[in-house]
Amino acid sequence: MENTMNIGYAALTKGAQLTRFIYKAPPLKQNEVRIAITHCGLCGTDIQGIDNYYQIVDYPFVPGHEIVGIITEAGSAVSPSRIGERVGVGWQGRSCMQCEWCLKGDVHLCMEVAENGSWTPYGGFSSSITVEDGFAYPLPPEIPSEVAAVLMCAGITVYTALKKFYASPSLNIGIIGIGGLGHLAITFAKAMGYKVTAISSSPHKCEEALTLGADWFIDSSDRAALGKMEFSFDLLFVTAHGGFVWERMLKILKKKGKVVLLGFPDINVDSVDLVAHELSIEGSFVGNQNNMRDMLQFAQKHAIRPMIEVMPMSHVNEAIKRLKQNQAHYRIVLQNDF
Amino acid sequence: MENTMNIGYAALTKGAQLTRFIYKAPPLKQNEVRIAITHCGLCGTDIQGIDNYYQIVDYPFVPGHEIVGIITEAGSAVSPSRIGERVGVGWQGRSCMQCEWCLKGDVHLCMEVAENGSWTPYGGFSSSITVEDGFAYPLPPEIPSEVAAVLMCAGITVYTALKKFYASPSLNIGIIGIGGLGHLAITFAKAMGYKVTAISSSPHKCEEALTLGADWFIDSSDRAALGKMEFSFDLLFVTAHGGFVWERMLKILKKKGKVVLLGFPDINVDSVDLVAHELSIEGSFVGNQNNMRDMLQFAQKHAIRPMIEVMPMSHVNEAIKRLKQNQAHYRIVLQNDF
Repeated sequence: MENTMNIGYAALTKGAQLTRFIYKAPPLKQNEVRIAITHCGLCGTDIQGIDNYYQIVDYPFVPGHEIVGIITEAGSAVSPSRIGERVGVGWQGRSCMQCEWCLKGDVHLCMEVAENGSWTPYGGFSSSITVEDGFAYPLPPEIPSEVAAVLMCAGITVYTALKKFYASPSLNIGIIGIGGLGHLAITFAKAMGYKVTAISSSPHKCEEALTLGADWFIDSSDRAALGKMEFSFDLLFVTAHGGFVWERMLKILKKKGKVVLLGFPDINVDSVDLVAHELSIEGSFVGNQNNMRDMLQFAQKHAIRPMIEVMPMSHVNEAIKRLKQNQAHYRIVLQNDF
Repeated sequence: MENTMNIGYAALTKGAQLTRFIYKAPPLKQNEVRIAITHCGLCGTDIQGIDNYYQIVDYPFVPGHEIVGIITEAGSAVSPSRIGERVGVGWQGRSCMQCEWCLKGDVHLCMEVAENGSWTPYGGFSSSITVEDGFAYPLPPEIPSEVAAVLMCAGITVYTALKKFYASPSLNIGIIGIGGLGHLAITFAKAMGYKVTAISSSPHKCEEALTLGADWFIDSSDRAALGKMEFSFDLLFVTAHGGFVWERMLKILKKKGKVVLLGFPDINVDSVDLVAHELSIEGSFVGNQNNMRDMLQFAQKHAIRPMIEVMPMSHVNEAIKRLKQNQAHYRIVLQNDF
């Protein structure tokens, strides 16, 4: 198996269209598994990776970090019974298990990942991937593979953030942005028992937001509607990259309220507002291994179903174009068609 | 006593120099006490009040919210034994005792104060003030009056924030800014057992910071020094209104680190940094009544001594000028000289 070859889709240079790319699969270490990929979701950060937005990418770059597939090989330290198992893999395929965060169980904050900036090297737009045993998550049989794919990044991101701050069913939360992350946040939040308000600059999304489970909808450009909601929300989860006015959002927060960032909007706030009302702005980044396991159980139990367009993986450039043009409704999953 | 008159120093119009101003003391309600003022600290927010920076001030405006004096009258619901007591009063002289925050004990977040924007009406640059019984804090005899004055706003602000996040003596904290708030934060933090780094854009303050109790000093404009401190701090307390680069400060924070705002700097941060490292920015606003009582006990036990210039209250305009020109070293207290 030393000469296993992968067929993937890679950006050969920064910002390039993806092209078919043949590369050698890395040798399997004793604590690793190799997975034949059946599905991979497309996430906005894949496009940022292609464009080297964070300046941490080496080319050729194979994107894709919402992976579902079947284990085909297991390293010598892994139970051979895992071969044949259907698993999901997110952006993280390994951890140092030595730094402060790994030892605390927060492997997603592993310092080694921070230092070398590595995402899953050679990602999921490919025929196979090799990751450490503990990052190949067993999937409940009730969850279809295209759904599981979306849960591996969008799902874990919204679930972990929502769960982290859940204190009581009386909490009143707002979800800013109804897109790939936001629509999934509404469904998870509702299933957790939150009172959920969807907040979006696209009033035509109102009906769908309510169908997804939101109790209320607010048009974020409607100053009169926002004015009536002063001091209303305990938590605002920002899944949008823009499209709202910070000052107005801080006004609808209760004192001691939190803005939880899942997306990457420009931040434009007045420190006086933060101090006088003891507000906070806090980032939340995917989740750890326990969050992933919990999330999968929760999604299975509550039959969480993101809205997904499935496309053949060979159409990856078309999928990227749809996502860039904001036409994805709401999440695209690529199905392998090699 | 219905016709008690006060002699104070008031801004008659926005931004004006203070002038002697005679006004009727408000009638004493049954749960209130009247205090003959002996000392009052000068705080940066007094100047913001004079300039109506927050647009919540009515003129004539008598500033001053770091008040020390002697109770001279007690309402019918207050124990007459309080007459003669030396007390301190901060910015807050009353609360509604009906809103969510008052019922939780966080009276400093009282919604009524939020709605009418009122500070202590007619403040401490005066001969007397009238406040509710519970906001006139008994002062330990060991604390000199000019020290107690500074503790009523600067002291409670830094103490409450430092205490709120104290988890273990291994926490590594930075205090950004060495001024009225910052120098006091260093002394409180050291007494609490924190490992304290003073961070300032004024390298000439290094020696004094170490004398105050800081373990280390960093010049915030020294990129090389900051570069060596990546991922070092659990908490950064911002007491400065500027003079540092946010991006560099976020880099010296550990993952899951917090920036706690006590001052009002412009905020210029990248949401990607907040998300990827799960950082947060959080405002902290003075403190509640229990915080004030705790703080006074703590300050007495640890002999906390802010660096103070005492000036006669009749020199209030000179004091304001010194503070505006950044010449106060570090806090000015006005002693009544009517």
